[in-house]
Order: sequence, then structure tokens, then C-alpha cells
Amino acid sequence: MSEAIQSDLSVVALAGGVGGARLVDGLHRALPQGALTVVVNTGDDFQHWGLHISPDLDTVMYTLAGLSPEDRGWGIEGDTFHVLAEAERRGVDDWFQLGDRDLLTHLTRTGALARGDSLTRVTAELCRTLGVDRPILPMTDAPRPTRMVTQGGDDLVFQEWLVKLRAPAVREVRHEGTHEATSEVLKALDAADLVVICPSNPYVSINPILTLDGIADRIRSTTSVAVSPIVGGKAVKGPLATMLPEISGREPSAEAVAMHYEGLLDGYAVHPGDSFEGSVPLLETNILIQSKEDRVLFASELLEFARSL
Amino acid sequence: MSEAIQSDLSVVALAGGVGGARLVDGLHRALPQGALTVVVNTGDDFQHWGLHISPDLDTVMYTLAGLSPEDRGWGIEGDTFHVLAEAERRGVDDWFQLGDRDLLTHLTRTGALARGDSLTRVTAELCRTLGVDRPILPMTDAPRPTRMVTQGGDDLVFQEWLVKLRAPAVREVRHEGTHEATSEVLKALDAADLVVICPSNPYVSINPILTLDGIADRIRSTTSVAVSPIVGGKAVKGPLATMLPEISGREPSAEAVAMHYEGLLDGYAVHPGDSFEGSVPLLETNILIQSKEDRVLFASELLEFARSL
Repeated sequence: MSEAIQSDLSVVALAGGVGGARLVDGLHRALPQGALTVVVNTGDDFQHWGLHISPDLDTVMYTLAGLSPEDRGWGIEGDTFHVLAEAERRGVDDWFQLGDRDLLTHLTRTGALARGDSLTRVTAELCRTLGVDRPILPMTDAPRPTRMVTQGGDDLVFQEWLVKLRAPAVREVRHEGTHEATSEVLKALDAADLVVICPSNPYVSINPILTLDGIADRIRSTTSVAVSPIVGGKAVKGPLATMLPEISGREPSAEAVAMHYEGLLDGYAVHPGDSFEGSVPLLETNILIQSKEDRVLFASELLEFARSL
Repeated sequence: MSEAIQSDLSVVALAGGVGGARLVDGLHRALPQGALTVVVNTGDDFQHWGLHISPDLDTVMYTLAGLSPEDRGWGIEGDTFHVLAEAERRGVDDWFQLGDRDLLTHLTRTGALARGDSLTRVTAELCRTLGVDRPILPMTDAPRPTRMVTQGGDDLVFQEWLVKLRAPAVREVRHEGTHEATSEVLKALDAADLVVICPSNPYVSINPILTLDGIADRIRSTTSVAVSPIVGGKAVKGPLATMLPEISGREPSAEAVAMHYEGLLDGYAVHPGDSFEGSVPLLETNILIQSKEDRVLFASELLEFARSL
């Protein structure tokens, strides 16, 4: 794929955590400066130790900054945990793993929000200090907490459900709070030639974005492709494989996710062996991104596929 | 001095930072459980990285918890500085030294205050997690910032003046905000047989407490002793020796501090060689507290002196 083919595309990627961040990193490297805007889920945002924590924004930022660990979906490579150890020592709530370097991100964000800065502006400033030069946009500047209603009937904040209780069986996922995307997000989608829905969890990472006012309409009117977060019936990362049957009644498969996105997609990338008869063209290729080089190769392949649609 | 002599005393100590904390530690060890209440200056409290930092409360807490470094007036012995190093790396404001273990105190305090807890209650909870079983009371629950007006005309928050700008020459010290002590502080003073004014800086550590409504009156009606923060014309710690002439026009001496407290004291402890002709009885003894054993010996001597008044 030539650079000319890529450089005339304006791309918006919708991303949640790890899987999303790795594809975004590939797109970031495959596309010229200015061509990519990343819109990130903030439904997982929560308060811990009085800090505003934005897990998906941080994962995307750290990945693009080259700071993410290869073997872990959160935090900063080689970070230390001295503040957390003190919390353990004092018997303070220590279920959420906060590294020392990572903590500065939450401190900076919380301080700036308290001074009245928007999350969009705070994120831009964090990106600047981390040396990330591509726009990363929170989906909204207002709270939009994802609530997990378990089959046991508990109604939980997302991170408590995922990290503290280790993802008990789910009956329903609810999106509370605002319905308004930021004007920056809507403008980026208006200008987009291509929307990429990253291989993030459709229920808890992508739906919070898709269900904001004006987002789904804009995606329908733009060439849009998704990458399956399911490979061979298993989630690439996280609890999606058990959530799919719990919520949709369907077995976990690339196809089940495509059905979830019905009417939105013009193309869909699946892993070899995961093809199915559907209404949109498929790109069947190795979507299990391992190395940083793989990220760029896969992103380039995906962009070429999108251009062909 | 027998324990009987000490045990019938109810003592309130007014303290600022280091010098105050060390005497408080001695009193804490010399007196039986329940006999000592410490009232601490909060005029130095400030916001940094969005956190509520109470430098004097922390110094007193850490000293009583046995966590204070011997060679440094702040923070926790053996603490690491990984979060601060990240701030340096990112170009975030790093002029105030925050250790990793220390940081958890500020996080806990800020989170609890944001939930609506009073500073008094937060301090009690911090003391509990640090294993400190004597009451430490902030002088007030409301903001009362100490402002330093320099001879250059700058009007600065105390910590900026002290730490960031290294104590430039002062024209005036102002106490802004509330005039109300907490009811806990007033009750402790009402019940006190003895008030000890610790060897802290009279302008920036003790005056913020003394100038709250009802405090000076209560001290006048109770047996009160102070310990000189000046030894041989030099401040035991901090910028007092230069501030005394700047503000009072007097040379730095134990006597100059006694004149500042005129009308409040029934006794005054000075270092050998620092005696003067004054209106209150003097205890002339080694007030340069070095070891933890010295703290207890000096505190016992001071209590015996107070009993004799």
C-alpha cells in the first residue's frame, strides 16, 4: 500500500482499552500526521482515592507514547508501586493497581478538572507532556458511567465489576449520564472518510460511544469498518466471550459481534477460520497483533481493505 | 519527676512543624494516655497537584508515629520519590517534595475532604491508620491561609514563600480566612491545666492559632509555658532568626520571642546563656533536643517546671 493511498484518508478510530489501543498504535504509525483522530470510551472513568481515573484514555495515551507494557493491559512499563504498598500497609482501599508514574497522570487530570478544564483539554495537555502528537479525544466531557447489572442483581460501577469482583455474570449493561458527545468528536466524524471500530468490547467499550447522540448516524453515513474482538470463539482480551452469551444469547464468535454492529458496517476484519456468510465484505487475515511491527502491517492492510469498499 | 506529678495534668500543646513536633513527641511519651492534646497550625495548608497538603499536621503525625526522618523536617523516613521523578520527567510543577508513602496521606485527606469529612475527622482517621493514639487537632476545619508579604511587595502563599522561593525578606505576615477554632480545640483548652507553646515559629506557626477567636483568652486563664525557638541568637530550625528583625525590629533572641508572647506566659524555657530579666519565671536548661530520649527528659523537666508555677 502506497503512502499516497493512505494520505488522502481522514480516519477516526473508536477505541476502548488494550485491543483498541494496539490497533490505534498501528493506524497512528501507518497514517501520516493529521490523518488520525482517536475517540476513546470514558464509560469506565471512575473516582478512586479521590482521583479521576480514565482507564481507556490512559491505555491509549500510554500505548501511543510507547509506555505501555507488552504483557499487561494497563499502566506504564517498569512502573513501581510504592504508593500502593503504603495503601496496603495502612489498610486503605488497594484493589485498583496504581503505579507511581501512572499516578501522576491521575493527579494531573484531577487537579486540572477541579480547576475547570474540560476532559478534552486535560487529555490534550497530558498527551503533550507524554509526547503524543495525534489527537486523542474523550467521547464526552461529561460523566457517562457504565453500570454493570449482574445476574445476581448487583448494580456496579464498571471498574468495580471488572477489577474488584473479576467480572461476575452480567444481565445488563447500562450507560448513565450524558448523551452528548463533544463538538470535537462530532466534527472529527463529520470530516472522516473512514471510521474504524477497534477490536474493543462492543458492550462496554464501543456502545458507550455509539449510543451518544449523533454518533451512529454519522457512522452510517461514512465508510466504516470494524475488527473482530473475538478469535476462534475466544476474546482477544477481557470478559467479552462470557458476556456475549449472557447478554445476546449468542455463542461468542466474530459473527455475533458483527450482528451487534448490524447496519453500521461496510466491512469487517476477522481472523482466518472466523469467516461467515453475512451482508458486508470480510477481510480475513491475521488480526492477532503481537509485535509493534505487526500493528503497522495489520493497520495498513485494514486501510487498504477500507479503500477498496 | 514522679508519674503522679505528671498524671494529674491535662496538657494542650500548640505546635507548628519540626521543633513543635519533637517537643510534642517528648510530651506524648512523658504523659499518660489521655493527658495530652496537640493543637496544630494549619495556616501552611495549601493545594498542590490538586491535593490538600497540611505540612504541620503531617510533621506532627509522622513524628508521633515514629516515621519522621531524624535529619529532615518533613516526610517519612526512607520514603521513595518515584511520583515526583515522573513529574520532573513530564515538566509538571515539582518544587514541593512529595514522597511516595507521604503522598498517600495527601490522597486520603483530599478524598475524604471532598466527601465532606472535616479536617478534624480526616486527621483522626489518618492517625488511626498510622497507629497514633493521642489526639491531634487541626486548629480549625476551615481555610486560614498564612500569606507572606515580602519586602519586595510580593504576596505569597506560605509554602511558596518558604519552599519555592526560599524565604525572601518579609514585611508582614497575614492570616486570612476563618477566625473560628474548632469546638474540639476550644473544649480541650477549657479542660487544660497547662498550655505548652512549642518552640515553633511565633509568626507563622503559633500566631495563626493564637489569633483565632477565644484562644488567647483561654491561654491567659490557664497556666501557660513556652519554649524558646531561638538558641544563642539562631533559630533552632527555619527562617525565624531573619524574620524577627524584619518584622519586630528586634535582634533574634529568646527574649525577643518572649516579648512577642507578652501577657500570655507564666513560664518560659530558654537555653543556657539565653536568660534575660523579664516578668515571668525562666527554666534555663538544654532545650536543643537531639535524641528521642532527650525529648522525654526535656518534656519531663518542662512539666515539672510548669507544676512549680
